[in-house]
Amino acid sequence: MAEIILREAQTERTIAIRPGETVFDALVRAGAAVDSYCGGAGTCGKCRVRVLNTSQVPTPGEAAHLTPEELAGSIRLACYLEVEDGMVVETLGGDALRVLTGGLEKEVAVNPLVQQVEITAPQGSIHDQRDIAAQILEQTGRRAVEAACLPKLACLEPGTVYGAVVLEDTIIDVRREKGSALGVAVDIGTTTIAAYLLDLGTGRELAVESTANPQRSFGADVISRIAFSQSRGDGVHQLQQALVGGLNRLIAELCRHAGANCRDVVLLTAVGNTVMLHTLLGVSAISIANAPFVPVFSEQVTACAKDLGIEIHPAGRVVLLPCVSGYVGADIVADLLVCGLAEEEEFGLLIDVGTNGEIVLGNRSRLLACSAAAGPAFEGANLSCGMAGVRGAISAFRLDQGRAVYEVIGGGAPKGICGSGLIDIAAELLRHGFLDNTGAFTDPAGLEEWQRPMLKLKDGRPAFAAAEGIVLTQKDVRELQLAKGAVKAGVLTLLKQAGISFEQVGTVFLAGGFGSSINLHNACRVGLIPAELEDKVVQIGNGAGVGAKLCLLDQSQLTQARALKRRVEYIELSTRADFQSIFMETMLF
Amino acid sequence: MAEIILREAQTERTIAIRPGETVFDALVRAGAAVDSYCGGAGTCGKCRVRVLNTSQVPTPGEAAHLTPEELAGSIRLACYLEVEDGMVVETLGGDALRVLTGGLEKEVAVNPLVQQVEITAPQGSIHDQRDIAAQILEQTGRRAVEAACLPKLACLEPGTVYGAVVLEDTIIDVRREKGSALGVAVDIGTTTIAAYLLDLGTGRELAVESTANPQRSFGADVISRIAFSQSRGDGVHQLQQALVGGLNRLIAELCRHAGANCRDVVLLTAVGNTVMLHTLLGVSAISIANAPFVPVFSEQVTACAKDLGIEIHPAGRVVLLPCVSGYVGADIVADLLVCGLAEEEEFGLLIDVGTNGEIVLGNRSRLLACSAAAGPAFEGANLSCGMAGVRGAISAFRLDQGRAVYEVIGGGAPKGICGSGLIDIAAELLRHGFLDNTGAFTDPAGLEEWQRPMLKLKDGRPAFAAAEGIVLTQKDVRELQLAKGAVKAGVLTLLKQAGISFEQVGTVFLAGGFGSSINLHNACRVGLIPAELEDKVVQIGNGAGVGAKLCLLDQSQLTQARALKRRVEYIELSTRADFQSIFMETMLF
Repeated sequence: MAEIILREAQTERTIAIRPGETVFDALVRAGAAVDSYCGGAGTCGKCRVRVLNTSQVPTPGEAAHLTPEELAGSIRLACYLEVEDGMVVETLGGDALRVLTGGLEKEVAVNPLVQQVEITAPQGSIHDQRDIAAQILEQTGRRAVEAACLPKLACLEPGTVYGAVVLEDTIIDVRREKGSALGVAVDIGTTTIAAYLLDLGTGRELAVESTANPQRSFGADVISRIAFSQSRGDGVHQLQQALVGGLNRLIAELCRHAGANCRDVVLLTAVGNTVMLHTLLGVSAISIANAPFVPVFSEQVTACAKDLGIEIHPAGRVVLLPCVSGYVGADIVADLLVCGLAEEEEFGLLIDVGTNGEIVLGNRSRLLACSAAAGPAFEGANLSCGMAGVRGAISAFRLDQGRAVYEVIGGGAPKGICGSGLIDIAAELLRHGFLDNTGAFTDPAGLEEWQRPMLKLKDGRPAFAAAEGIVLTQKDVRELQLAKGAVKAGVLTLLKQAGISFEQVGTVFLAGGFGSSINLHNACRVGLIPAELEDKVVQIGNGAGVGAKLCLLDQSQLTQARALKRRVEYIELSTRADFQSIFMETMLF
Repeated sequence: MAEIILREAQTERTIAIRPGETVFDALVRAGAAVDSYCGGAGTCGKCRVRVLNTSQVPTPGEAAHLTPEELAGSIRLACYLEVEDGMVVETLGGDALRVLTGGLEKEVAVNPLVQQVEITAPQGSIHDQRDIAAQILEQTGRRAVEAACLPKLACLEPGTVYGAVVLEDTIIDVRREKGSALGVAVDIGTTTIAAYLLDLGTGRELAVESTANPQRSFGADVISRIAFSQSRGDGVHQLQQALVGGLNRLIAELCRHAGANCRDVVLLTAVGNTVMLHTLLGVSAISIANAPFVPVFSEQVTACAKDLGIEIHPAGRVVLLPCVSGYVGADIVADLLVCGLAEEEEFGLLIDVGTNGEIVLGNRSRLLACSAAAGPAFEGANLSCGMAGVRGAISAFRLDQGRAVYEVIGGGAPKGICGSGLIDIAAELLRHGFLDNTGAFTDPAGLEEWQRPMLKLKDGRPAFAAAEGIVLTQKDVRELQLAKGAVKAGVLTLLKQAGISFEQVGTVFLAGGFGSSINLHNACRVGLIPAELEDKVVQIGNGAGVGAKLCLLDQSQLTQARALKRRVEYIELSTRADFQSIFMETMLF
């Protein structure tokens, strides 16, 4: 069979190819870590790979995106190359994303939705002719045996001990394997996926893995992926296949590390934003992209892993936590489970900032949520020198006695600025008077001696040189203002809706990878978080992933998640007459 | 692709073949009507087919089973022939079985377990951002949408009317097709399958079809099929495949006749003996064949049609009615539903005679059941001139003024005697003194003039010549005595257990194809049914099939079936010390 050899990170594997397809298509199908904003249309130039053994000459389209040095180094664009049998393709640095897998932990009971219980295969007797299923149900206190499991009951050796896998009242499998079954919790982010392998008997965490979301080959954010899914007849299916492929590799990796077998995994709980959960089930999310932004589903869904193509135990189940709305996803519900805000008397705030800022304000009697469109600035996109939080990004910055001091992810020379770096730079610029409170660069004439060399002109407008070749332009500052202004406006709108002052807010839970990577003081200085709340902030890390783990271990957490979903009152900011005026104000520093 | 051409009845179709397999294997896989007792082992000589275009010379094994005339007529044994591309194979008369599809009818509500209800795809609004699923659930009053159906919800055109297919509280599909969904009820007999297509909206019956059970290629009765399944690694799977293939062809035929589409069928209810239902789910029935005769399952099972390979709507369900025990199947539970015995104050009897005689005695407060091993005599097997109730069988017989008058199924010269013919002949022999009450042929010296020519000697022992070349031997009479004795002994044992006399029995319901084809008076004369009960007998026809239809139309009938299953007290005759002595007596005439 024709195949190409894929070298990725330290591993090598083969991918079966289809005649006439592009390398991009083959890589995407195999879930390789290949970037793309255009989904293989040949326009973004992101899907760079190294191919040594091809005779295909670079086309003008390819050459337009690659430097002569890159071409000389055998760097090519996967979407321009046709597959050839035996081709060796190397992906480039796609795995350097930082993924947050830790987070605030919480003690729960170990009582999973799917669990393994011990049974003894019955010895029939002429005086007790009850069927085998009935006798096993009596032993386990369950009510039914799934049809697909019945053939196995015919093969049990009487008197032998087995493990019955039970889902609520139903036996879904009987296994020879002793001990406990395993579960996987996944947090499906737009950019990255974090996954956890847990022992469903002891509750112990056995392995943690993370990877890039293979869907990024179809676009960097949810809107571009939805656009991709609309542009191709099988676009929704491709998004699903890419995601499921990524999950399967993560699960295999988790099991390899723990010395376990994927078939021992009987339950997977998944959180993510609403669009990610739609694509996991192969459901088009077009209705979320367009007004009135209605999701197709938002309740908890329990599906058969095998129907989704997820390679765990054939009778295993996949549970998607409930979402609140099209833009407040199951990740936020999971955050709520973890931070406990919804059980307190005092009001609390939960803020998860990404492309959207999802905000919940509430206490045990009321919960309000909204989603503020922050735009991609915090992801490092749309900035002149912006980049994701990967190797080479300036992730922290300060001015120390007139000198720029910065941290670069992975070390070495900086290549750009990621979201946390952006906040640090802007805060320092404000502190040192480079920017006024409208966000405009001040006249260099008004600056001190040491400051002036740091201001450059870019395209005739002032820009701050954060490092060699890396600048922050006036337009970049405006992008930050839009982003932070939207989040803060969301917070203020919820406070107003609830009639709550800053003083009445007890704790501010900052969730998610971005929220955990930022310098809090600087985030308050630029106004991403109201300065009045600075002392109340707790960074809870990947609350979404932790929430998925809680629900994996304890089905009562799932019950709580469903209850939380129902309790949350969603505020659609676009319908609020006052939002725009609040926003106008929060854009200022 | 290599294939053979199968000609069967008036139709022709192609079957893909696998290199090196036998024609028998290919036919069985395709569900062709090919007989066999040995399952393709080359020993029974039953799998006759006509093949004109082969150069394969008959082997000695084949020649041993076929006459020179048959060989000259291109008749071959399928199990001895290797497949060849383009081979034309004709099956022989496998479709002439009589299948009873009619039966006592009963009025029920039309409220099926799976039904189609009208919905209007919601128009979202910025002021009502509830998800599409939630809005549809509100319209239908249901609680959940199956994961596999969610992708379809994303494609609905707002304001358009659709049909939601609902299973209890769950929406399993949304269809453009208006009107009602369809359902199929099947009665899976060991020998034949009857199937009914019904409109689940109106309750109207649209088509009826029947066919031979393709499993008979693996053995004539359940025990030989179980033995077959044990003899091959994938024997259970082969039994299932053969049965499912037969069901799929029946369903296709039903839909063709009704001008319907198989994908409109959303529910299938199945009854049958316990072994048939085990094989339908691919469950080994070995435990039923051996003491203590314990089935693997006996409760109602609801399975996904697609998991079983049944070709109806992809989200369709298959419901197997509950069984009582390994030898009192769902067919008997269905009979009970139909005859109403279990709701009366007066005691009633239900008798279904086949290879086993299944008997229920009871009223609204008590239900007793047993299964008496009648052996295959009533199926026409194990008799010197016995045959199934197919073309050429003597099915009715009387002596009219010294002459034998008989009916032959399909007309023409008789080829053998089937079960109903056996009873008639024996009854006449008893009436006219050919047999004494121990079942022995009387000394010809004591017979009248006209009688003597009818007695022949076969292998040195007396035999009755029913027709040209067709005799009933002493051994045949003994087979009948074993069979009828077992059934009558079962009846007497239940009466004894319940402390009930013949007088206290109100109605005797005689169910099943055999029970409907027999001459009642003669059945009482030979003692299959106690003569005391003759006036109380009602032949209810295919009660099992009718019961499956009731459960298809009205889910409350399924509830009743489950309740009946629990109420029935099963009496294992082999554990009764008194059964053997009762049996000794009932064997006499």
